[in-house]
Amino acid sequence: MQQQMAVVTLGIADPARSRRFYVDGFGWAPVFESAEIIFYQMNGFVLATWLASALAADMRRPGAAAPGPTSGPAGTGAVALAHNVGRRDDVDPVMAALERAGGTILRPADAPPHGGYRGYVADPDGHAWEIAWNPAWPIDPQGHVSFGL
Amino acid sequence: MQQQMAVVTLGIADPARSRRFYVDGFGWAPVFESAEIIFYQMNGFVLATWLASALAADMRRPGAAAPGPTSGPAGTGAVALAHNVGRRDDVDPVMAALERAGGTILRPADAPPHGGYRGYVADPDGHAWEIAWNPAWPIDPQGHVSFGL
Repeated sequence: MQQQMAVVTLGIADPARSRRFYVDGFGWAPVFESAEIIFYQMNGFVLATWLASALAADMRRPGAAAPGPTSGPAGTGAVALAHNVGRRDDVDPVMAALERAGGTILRPADAPPHGGYRGYVADPDGHAWEIAWNPAWPIDPQGHVSFGL
Repeated sequence: MQQQMAVVTLGIADPARSRRFYVDGFGWAPVFESAEIIFYQMNGFVLATWLASALAADMRRPGAAAPGPTSGPAGTGAVALAHNVGRRDDVDPVMAALERAGGTILRPADAPPHGGYRGYVADPDGHAWEIAWNPAWPIDPQGHVSFGL
């Protein structure tokens, strides 16, 4: 399947503190922001910063503590990677293939309120992959993903 | 500065087990592999899987345990993100800007044996960013990064 990652999501504890690092430190401009999530359009994918508790709940992986720079990221639920697919019917077969290849289903696919269809699989080392059909975010033939509304 | 992430590096415990997930599960083809690291060319960036102990040592963040799918990623040293810059002299100013914006220097920049120049900064939530000048990996004007040798 397409060699593509659509989103890197970092769990955060304090949106204003995190925003200062990315906007003032890196000098990057958000493409969308709300009280709990910010999206940055990157080079062919989207970087998201999201409240760690919401991210952990979304991937059915409770236990994320508020992480800090010295302690390192929270042990569970602090990072998610996403691979997007072009059709709703592609999500379940991809998740099944990953499970057969040693992955662990964290959350079977279902439809989120904002549309689309997605689930989460952990790789053998525990790194979480969201497998998502998101019709609002275009994917070009090279696999480059753009933020859309 | 360029809104760009060059590498996502995942700490792994067992290269063969991890390779099965990415190569057999996702169906992706490595662009380079050795006994301890594999690179996959993605949509405008590179995905790396690297022994967690080596990754943690590289970013001066010892303490990574062998992670697992149920425990989640190791608390420290299991994930690194990278932002590449076009010139060696850009590395230190970027790291300083990130520190001023609430980041924590993990490893001051120095020159690795394979060439280039790089250091690590943790964001306020502990997510590690490598800031790197890597003359072997081309960056196009849109910030798309390609694996090079």
